[in-house]
Amino acid sequence: MDNTPLPLASTFVSVLQQVLGAPEKGFSLHEPEFAGNEWKYVKECIDTGWVSSIGKYVDEFERCLATYTEAKHAVAVVNGTAAQHIALLLMGIGPGDEVIIPSLSFVATANAVAHCGAIPHFVDSTERTLGLDPEALEKHLKQTTERAAGGLRNTLTGRRIAGIVPMHTFGHPVEITELLEVAGRFGLPVIEDAAESLGSYYQGRHTGTFGHLGILSFNGNKVITTGGGGAILTNDSELARKAKYLTTTAKRPHRWEFFHDEIAYNYRLPNLNAALGCAQLERLEDTLARKRQLTERYREVFQSAHGLHFVEEPKDCHSNYWLNAVRLIDPSMSARDILLSTANDAGFQCRPAWTLLHKLPMYASCPRAELPTAEKLEASLINIPSSAYLAELSR
Amino acid sequence: MDNTPLPLASTFVSVLQQVLGAPEKGFSLHEPEFAGNEWKYVKECIDTGWVSSIGKYVDEFERCLATYTEAKHAVAVVNGTAAQHIALLLMGIGPGDEVIIPSLSFVATANAVAHCGAIPHFVDSTERTLGLDPEALEKHLKQTTERAAGGLRNTLTGRRIAGIVPMHTFGHPVEITELLEVAGRFGLPVIEDAAESLGSYYQGRHTGTFGHLGILSFNGNKVITTGGGGAILTNDSELARKAKYLTTTAKRPHRWEFFHDEIAYNYRLPNLNAALGCAQLERLEDTLARKRQLTERYREVFQSAHGLHFVEEPKDCHSNYWLNAVRLIDPSMSARDILLSTANDAGFQCRPAWTLLHKLPMYASCPRAELPTAEKLEASLINIPSSAYLAELSR
Ligand SMILES: Cc1ncc(COP(=O)(O)O)c(C=O)c1O
Ligand SMILES: Cc1ncc(COP(=O)(O)O)c(C=O)c1O
Repeated sequence: MDNTPLPLASTFVSVLQQVLGAPEKGFSLHEPEFAGNEWKYVKECIDTGWVSSIGKYVDEFERCLATYTEAKHAVAVVNGTAAQHIALLLMGIGPGDEVIIPSLSFVATANAVAHCGAIPHFVDSTERTLGLDPEALEKHLKQTTERAAGGLRNTLTGRRIAGIVPMHTFGHPVEITELLEVAGRFGLPVIEDAAESLGSYYQGRHTGTFGHLGILSFNGNKVITTGGGGAILTNDSELARKAKYLTTTAKRPHRWEFFHDEIAYNYRLPNLNAALGCAQLERLEDTLARKRQLTERYREVFQSAHGLHFVEEPKDCHSNYWLNAVRLIDPSMSARDILLSTANDAGFQCRPAWTLLHKLPMYASCPRAELPTAEKLEASLINIPSSAYLAELSR
Repeated sequence: MDNTPLPLASTFVSVLQQVLGAPEKGFSLHEPEFAGNEWKYVKECIDTGWVSSIGKYVDEFERCLATYTEAKHAVAVVNGTAAQHIALLLMGIGPGDEVIIPSLSFVATANAVAHCGAIPHFVDSTERTLGLDPEALEKHLKQTTERAAGGLRNTLTGRRIAGIVPMHTFGHPVEITELLEVAGRFGLPVIEDAAESLGSYYQGRHTGTFGHLGILSFNGNKVITTGGGGAILTNDSELARKAKYLTTTAKRPHRWEFFHDEIAYNYRLPNLNAALGCAQLERLEDTLARKRQLTERYREVFQSAHGLHFVEEPKDCHSNYWLNAVRLIDPSMSARDILLSTANDAGFQCRPAWTLLHKLPMYASCPRAELPTAEKLEASLINIPSSAYLAELSR
């Protein structure tokens, strides 16, 4: 890596400083905030002894999530990866199937596919949303698949293509309507990876509620946290029932008998963690409003930063701006890395997008389309400090 | 089910009443207790914002678990099932392998095998410990296996037998030395399912530290709880390192880069849950001492209960008596069920052992040895209320 400090790096750091001020103890990328009923609810769990699989908060959290997202059902689970694993299983994805995912995503999107014994199949992203590109998807499917007895067949590998998992990158909604249209034409189910997009809307409807199933994550770095946690969203009551059953060891209800009738999982969210989630959800709107103030300020100040482009919410979308991001107008891994090291050295925690999934050794030989936009985005995206409390500093 | 109240059922309930008194609000099977630093540590997590993957309690919990069990390493994970899944993967168990487990166990023991794509292979238990019978195991392996190029081959199925998972039932240690000898003669690794046996010792050494790997569970019904949680125990530093890596997405350490080099899992225990665990561990000795007082009292009073036999810790063992149990001297499913309904109706939460795993539909066609003792135990075991606080009532 060439370590010459670029003029661009100074510009970058000076904009961060202009918005956030001097980093005395450093600004991290995204910090959770516990300013509401967190302690009250968690204390209640401890005082009553209901910290584990019994207790009211899991039900309550599921109800509040469903209300907030306007999904018919939300099933709370132990984390986003587990949610994705179960969602894929519920769509009938199994060993030897291929599942279309973006190469520009967190590794969990691919891992959950692998946990089903299935194989990720990478398709390109678009600069418009940072997510799966409907046109690239359609073109790729047209060129490389055929209808066969068992479903859609990849003519190159001979395997079944069994589903599509679009991901709402950094909270920005993908073109989900267009993706659903393409998926429909090829007979594929869609599972939305909305791990990052709680509070994000596409044409007024909450992300994660368009596909057959959607998933959320409440990891410590997300807009709300349960310590670790996730949820499955669906409008299909039967899928919701199955999701609950499969994530709680498939035990038939009985007063004392232990009778289970499927290979299933312990993917339960403990009541203790759900209690935290309930309190966090109560303040979500306030959190998102303050995050948006911060975003506004970034947007304004980055306008005068030549060579850098502030990433804004896509057309017809309302984004939670989970992680604010800038793009280098001239993509370059080495320039990107100089900006990253300069900013991190100066106390502003910044990070690149993920290493593209098809470059990771365990997924390097998976099938893929051409990925020019993903490559370009990888060499240009930088996430910047995005905690809600930073809004107060940026006034 | 014949519902005639047996004289045995009256005896059973009257003994429970004699020990515990009248169940005003009912006595549940096993309740957690939060009488130490739970509040303090959990509140600290919330106050500092460290509830998720960063924070000191996970390290601290692992250190305390290792100290307590005298295992060289403990790796905290999201629950016991996840611990078992990873332990099996670390022993090289994969699709198409068979793994020896007792049919008398909780479904998670079999599920974790299935999660590796492997097949449970059931062997009988012994009345001496309620766990795997070393003699039955040896006889079965002699009769049905042969040495082959890839390892031990099941001559009936043609598949590789790749490991043995003994389980310490209700906290009572199995004959682990003998099992390790048999395993050694057949070249099989041993993974101890010590989910129920934190605080149980075989010849002075903690359960879960004899095999290549051992696992613990901190589910809400166990002797200590983290809400949901588990741990992997091992004396092998390389296995411990790999366990940590595989349970935390196999991310290579880097200041900002996301580079992962194996298909891995999000099986992290959140810091919030680890904080609870640290406080629970501090009081474990006290909890176990009170549980033992309760056990003493049960033992004494059940002596005069004809037809019932109180289950005591095996020879050379110190048991945590996680769940106290009685056995019907004449095994009978219908008699057992009458005792269960009578006691539960009277407010004493009691339960049978698990439905034998080879009787569950998804495992019904798995390979198995003859299981006469497991069948007998299934028709005779009943767990009775075992929370530590009951010791105070039973004085
Ligand atoms: C895009 C994406 N998918 C899946 C996940 C997995 O969620 P979790 O970390 O809760 O398992 C995450 C978050 O970490 C994510 O960002
Ligand atoms: C014998 C046995 N194995 C495995 C487990 C799985 O542990 P967990 O419930 O924490 O996933 C349990 C406890 O529930 C158990 O009793």
